[in-house]
Amino acid sequence: MSRFLSKRHEKLVAYVPGEQPRDKKYIKLNTNESPYPPSPLVVEKINAAEVSDLRLYPDPECLSLRRKLADFYGFETSNIFVSNGSDEILSFAFMAFCDDEKGMAFPDISYGFYSVYGALYNIECSVIPLKADYTVDCSKYYGIGKNIVIANPNAPTGISVGTAEIEKMLVTNPDNIVIIDEAYVDFGGSSCAELAKSHDNLIVVRTFSKSRSLAGARVGFSISSQEIAADLNKIKYSTNPYNLNRLSLAAAEAAVDDDEYFRNCREKIIDAREHTAAALREIGFDVLPSDANFIFARHPSISGFDCYKKLKDAGILVRHFNRERLFDFVRITIGTRAQMDALIEEITRILHD
Amino acid sequence: MSRFLSKRHEKLVAYVPGEQPRDKKYIKLNTNESPYPPSPLVVEKINAAEVSDLRLYPDPECLSLRRKLADFYGFETSNIFVSNGSDEILSFAFMAFCDDEKGMAFPDISYGFYSVYGALYNIECSVIPLKADYTVDCSKYYGIGKNIVIANPNAPTGISVGTAEIEKMLVTNPDNIVIIDEAYVDFGGSSCAELAKSHDNLIVVRTFSKSRSLAGARVGFSISSQEIAADLNKIKYSTNPYNLNRLSLAAAEAAVDDDEYFRNCREKIIDAREHTAAALREIGFDVLPSDANFIFARHPSISGFDCYKKLKDAGILVRHFNRERLFDFVRITIGTRAQMDALIEEITRILHD
Repeated sequence: MSRFLSKRHEKLVAYVPGEQPRDKKYIKLNTNESPYPPSPLVVEKINAAEVSDLRLYPDPECLSLRRKLADFYGFETSNIFVSNGSDEILSFAFMAFCDDEKGMAFPDISYGFYSVYGALYNIECSVIPLKADYTVDCSKYYGIGKNIVIANPNAPTGISVGTAEIEKMLVTNPDNIVIIDEAYVDFGGSSCAELAKSHDNLIVVRTFSKSRSLAGARVGFSISSQEIAADLNKIKYSTNPYNLNRLSLAAAEAAVDDDEYFRNCREKIIDAREHTAAALREIGFDVLPSDANFIFARHPSISGFDCYKKLKDAGILVRHFNRERLFDFVRITIGTRAQMDALIEEITRILHD
Repeated sequence: MSRFLSKRHEKLVAYVPGEQPRDKKYIKLNTNESPYPPSPLVVEKINAAEVSDLRLYPDPECLSLRRKLADFYGFETSNIFVSNGSDEILSFAFMAFCDDEKGMAFPDISYGFYSVYGALYNIECSVIPLKADYTVDCSKYYGIGKNIVIANPNAPTGISVGTAEIEKMLVTNPDNIVIIDEAYVDFGGSSCAELAKSHDNLIVVRTFSKSRSLAGARVGFSISSQEIAADLNKIKYSTNPYNLNRLSLAAAEAAVDDDEYFRNCREKIIDAREHTAAALREIGFDVLPSDANFIFARHPSISGFDCYKKLKDAGILVRHFNRERLFDFVRITIGTRAQMDALIEEITRILHD
């Protein structure tokens, strides 16, 4: 820290991304990336001519991608806001809609970034515990009178909230924003995006990082009323108008064009997840019911940290969270069937040691 | 605007980027892009294997690019911070180092974004008029006791401040940050980066958008003490840790590798600038002395707006600023020699009409 940093940030504790060790080649099941490369259409699209055009600024309105997303999801272009990863939308939304008077409510166990945004922007956060079974305690949000952010499916549990419960949050908090972070929704949850047509206080946040195999391109988007999209734009044009580079825009467009590839990858991941969950349950794991591209699991005879550590020693990276209520678990990203079989074999060996 | 936007942003007026009309093909001299494509090494680097790896997150530490920049400029990796365009660094710096107690000082005529950051983050801005000859009134910043941001060369004037004056700003404001925005420095100004070795309150901001022909990739970086770099990192990891995508990182590395190409493009642009300035002076223009890849010029017999408008009608885009002290001018980006000759011919025709 320099002696110039504003006092208001002195105690800020930043987000810590999943580790990216470079010491050896791992089976990497720790940051919820797709095991499949992006669509061949993406590879085709990023050709020499596209790269040569890097001398030119990107379209700050991202019109072409927004049109494609609007068509794909059945909205108007003005309902779509795109960003440099979905984290950027979350950051913009905290900045736009929260202040001294409007705090944010979210579950105690969820995407770890929500509380960081709260701290950065000096926003009062209401942290509401998940129920004992690790589901979101929806009734606590009804009429709470604060802005709300819910990851659905939730991370790192993988458990979904139903659309009816989300609608009740929207209806009972008419003067507050409800952000539904659907980063993982393509793997089995139900999107509540349709509700944006009837509820002007909903922001649905999506990403190309997981189901579209584009974590490295950094593209996220939101679906909301056009007024909310305009507010997000106001923040974007006041921080970084050219937030999306040309190649990521082109990659995202090509990914939307290849719906068959998208569905195919998604199905393979869902199949591998169900296979892995069943196999782990068979050897004694408690696996939370996941709608995501990861599973969250614990075993009575090994701590979460030991499981993580022994898997890492064996060349398999999973994620462990050193936090209350999460100590016992590991979060395992769903890779290819072969990767998951290697994981199951290794875990079985570890348990028998 | 939605009814949910925080009151503190109600009066925020966002930055307006240069127009990107799509109605026809223009000679585009309005957003200070390079007329030359990025180095062939960039095109080579962004191959199918790189694109396939987009399924993986980028390195959030951007280590490889930071090492290259550190070597190139003679610093340690810990002195280099990289970002999604240099605008992001400016935004982070306003957020990190300014607050209710620490305002920001900058010239009245400069990069239009500084005042937008001030408004967004609710920071008191001291706006100091340029002198009558459009040079920065350096003495006004000595001992001002506020954070300072100076574009050097300045925009849209193109005029440079000397390193001695910058050092005096640093020395007389030891408890404040001095940001020198060197977006255009490669075209003739003197970089003050070396001063970062002896002054812990300096942040030098650079970009790949102009002299490296990568406006479309969105890559900026700063050179500063490692403590300041750590502060910028703290803000980055509290907003958007994966702020730079894989392909832009790869493109930027390849651009640094091709120093000969870089020098060659830069020389051609400087030559075209001097040629254009001389030609415009010959037909009666007052051209401010530019160290940038643009010139700022006015003519006694035509208003800045008319000049802009008539050039646009003729298929040549330049930029006009509808602001006090700038009405009379147009800002003309330096393109290829052929583009500049077309511009000179068209302006000559307009003046004779």
